[in-house]
Amino acid sequence: MRFWPLSRQLYPKQLLRIMGGETLIQQTMRRVLRCVPAKRVLISTNPAQAESIRLQLADWKDDLADNFIIEPEARNTAPAIALAATVLRQRNPQAVMLVAPADHVIKDHRRFQSAVALGAKLADAGHLVTFGIRPIRPETGYGYIQADLRARLGRHDGLVGHPIVRFVEKPAASTASRYVKAGSYYWNSGIFLWRASAILEELARYQPALAQAMRRIERGLSSGASGELIARAYRQLTAVSIDHAVMERSARAAMIPVDFAWSDVGNWSSLEEVAPRDGTGNVLSGNVVDLDSRNSILYADRRLVATIGLSDMVVVDTPDATLICPKARSQDVRQVVEKLRKQGAPEHLEHRTVFRPWGSYTVLEEGPGYKVKKVTVKPGSRLSLQLHHQRSEHWVVIAGTARITCGRRVFTLKVGESTGIPKKTRHRLENAGVEPLHIIEVQNGLYLGEDDIVRFHDDYGRSARSKE
Amino acid sequence: MRFWPLSRQLYPKQLLRIMGGETLIQQTMRRVLRCVPAKRVLISTNPAQAESIRLQLADWKDDLADNFIIEPEARNTAPAIALAATVLRQRNPQAVMLVAPADHVIKDHRRFQSAVALGAKLADAGHLVTFGIRPIRPETGYGYIQADLRARLGRHDGLVGHPIVRFVEKPAASTASRYVKAGSYYWNSGIFLWRASAILEELARYQPALAQAMRRIERGLSSGASGELIARAYRQLTAVSIDHAVMERSARAAMIPVDFAWSDVGNWSSLEEVAPRDGTGNVLSGNVVDLDSRNSILYADRRLVATIGLSDMVVVDTPDATLICPKARSQDVRQVVEKLRKQGAPEHLEHRTVFRPWGSYTVLEEGPGYKVKKVTVKPGSRLSLQLHHQRSEHWVVIAGTARITCGRRVFTLKVGESTGIPKKTRHRLENAGVEPLHIIEVQNGLYLGEDDIVRFHDDYGRSARSKE
Repeated sequence: MRFWPLSRQLYPKQLLRIMGGETLIQQTMRRVLRCVPAKRVLISTNPAQAESIRLQLADWKDDLADNFIIEPEARNTAPAIALAATVLRQRNPQAVMLVAPADHVIKDHRRFQSAVALGAKLADAGHLVTFGIRPIRPETGYGYIQADLRARLGRHDGLVGHPIVRFVEKPAASTASRYVKAGSYYWNSGIFLWRASAILEELARYQPALAQAMRRIERGLSSGASGELIARAYRQLTAVSIDHAVMERSARAAMIPVDFAWSDVGNWSSLEEVAPRDGTGNVLSGNVVDLDSRNSILYADRRLVATIGLSDMVVVDTPDATLICPKARSQDVRQVVEKLRKQGAPEHLEHRTVFRPWGSYTVLEEGPGYKVKKVTVKPGSRLSLQLHHQRSEHWVVIAGTARITCGRRVFTLKVGESTGIPKKTRHRLENAGVEPLHIIEVQNGLYLGEDDIVRFHDDYGRSARSKE
Repeated sequence: MRFWPLSRQLYPKQLLRIMGGETLIQQTMRRVLRCVPAKRVLISTNPAQAESIRLQLADWKDDLADNFIIEPEARNTAPAIALAATVLRQRNPQAVMLVAPADHVIKDHRRFQSAVALGAKLADAGHLVTFGIRPIRPETGYGYIQADLRARLGRHDGLVGHPIVRFVEKPAASTASRYVKAGSYYWNSGIFLWRASAILEELARYQPALAQAMRRIERGLSSGASGELIARAYRQLTAVSIDHAVMERSARAAMIPVDFAWSDVGNWSSLEEVAPRDGTGNVLSGNVVDLDSRNSILYADRRLVATIGLSDMVVVDTPDATLICPKARSQDVRQVVEKLRKQGAPEHLEHRTVFRPWGSYTVLEEGPGYKVKKVTVKPGSRLSLQLHHQRSEHWVVIAGTARITCGRRVFTLKVGESTGIPKKTRHRLENAGVEPLHIIEVQNGLYLGEDDIVRFHDDYGRSARSKE
């Protein structure tokens, strides 16, 4: 949540277009597609994000159809990796597995491909491989890995693999400085390669309880046990990182120092490592009018942000929230988010614009008894056939052509036309044209929660009363 | 415009609720009412602000009905004061005139009243009186007045009047420091008292061209000449301040050092002189979530603003624009406004919420071919009977009860009901209830400017095609 207010609990970093035209998960997909075909990519995610990720990876919809592994609840990386390795080993007992976080920026896809090629070779030989990043500053927010650079486990295209001597979790500043000077320490990228069977063996050795639970889950998956049963077992797992669970202990750990520009864009300040700056050192985006600022990250959207004489500051503006802090305090954004969570402020949870399989909606205004939304429906898409018990709705078409179902009537609305949907009436909104359909929806009612919905038919298989 | 983005060209500082529950002009009105009855208060303003000021001073509507002096165009203070003095002398040749800027904050109305009592006494004796503020820092943005403190022109309730030795326009920092130490220099408050006839005599002496033009205007006013003729004469006047035109030259100039807390709230930084600070020196307002900021002005509204570790900064958030700058750069806000004006950015001109005699409207969203507004109509009020050539409108009632005229039909709409107004159709929106009426209006059309309006009847005497 250190990318708040651009990221939200329900809209995390991997779904954002932070650098360039594609979101981070789309960039990650393109990167791994240089190494494997789409049908061999597994997506490990959670129920809240699965739908958004499917939407963003719609280009590979058919290949990915059966490749979503949905954690019922987050348990850090070790259980997530164990589950993915279990699924993968079922499909192919010899499978080599590349673990690629979906929210990193890597600038050179070709060098990434070379590193994966060498990593796969080492993984095939039984190693647990991680990519090491040459540290460019004494960062105290990352883990460091010390490698034995004299020992060489393999080489490819100018890259060499080495055994790992030890892992060091986020060191003090003085220690970090020493590591940077020493030359044999690398940042832990969190990108791994291993045989699925190898990581499961090591998990069995160092995390017997996790491994045992995973075997129960595996049996459940093969025997077609109910999703709820499997979910319950997963929720009981202890949250632990794969570094702590295995990598720091295993004798099979190896590291490949890589040479591509990498950032985990862990907070606003780290954006500088990969974003282009202008002549005064500013990273500028959106509707910013600036006078004399230097070395600042000024990130806006459509709203106007005027800045004067800022130095080493971060300003991030979104439709419903603005963040202002010195770069040096970027890490503390999570404290703000925590404060908002405790206050129950909606701004920590989601954006004003929410994406759905059929398109999106933006809340323009709400108050006692009413809510105004702009609703966008993709060509060929339609919302579920639904009704609301407690609210009526009015729709005005502002672009495109709508086909409306309201009770027993089905009719077409063009730009400038409108209709009212009484409460307790079955209705459906459909884009009947080839351009995106935009409507303004005005809701009236005493209760306007998204959960006042009864679905009779849905193209996207959503349950009768779910909010999505 | 140094209070941007809270002030806008069409919504200046005096109309803002900057300190406390009333706007600056309302505070000014209450202040002068301690000295004179409402029917003796003249309001000098311009066409763009007159309607907003009438709305804000509606409590004294009848008393003020004939007391608006509307400058056709701004010409600085000397012509504005000359015009007001001319009108006043026509009404009462002996009139003593208090000139009180409508955008100042004064904390002690009782001491203000005492100062006016003494000022009126001196004015009656022929002096041109100004109030001097004891300088609390070597401000370089104000003019200074040197008084002859040994000579006493009169006294009342602990206050004493002195002859003025000289005026000094915005001095250098070192000079300002010397003035603060000297003790006989005061800030020029811009608040004056004189007989209307006295200031006109001095204007005749020092500004013969202005005085001559004013006599022509006076004859025009008495003979009932057309407003346009008078406006044309006024527009030809040279813009000049009353300080420069008369006060710096006149032998009759006198000053009363006053002892009330005063601020012209000339920029965001000066807000500190009168606004209450919290324990860490911050002036906080609105939906701000702060961690560790100090001595900063953090001014928000309903949108969320999160700040971390700011020091001596100004952050001002409004629905459509945000300003961020160090306090020391507060003066440069006008450069930003100038930049916006040159770009034709609407954010320099007006707010998303615009006030009208019948209520207000807020633009919620606009795009190609559509605009969405929330419209509020006061009980008992109605918009003009009007039509638009290029747009249709849809209205959905979200609170209150509307009486609608559309073509020949007149009907009532309740909460949750809606209607469509085709283009080229006469229509009227009226609040038929005792509570405020709120509607959501969706406009469709190729041209959506406020000037696409033809008025057939208006309760507020607005012309057929004016945008207000």
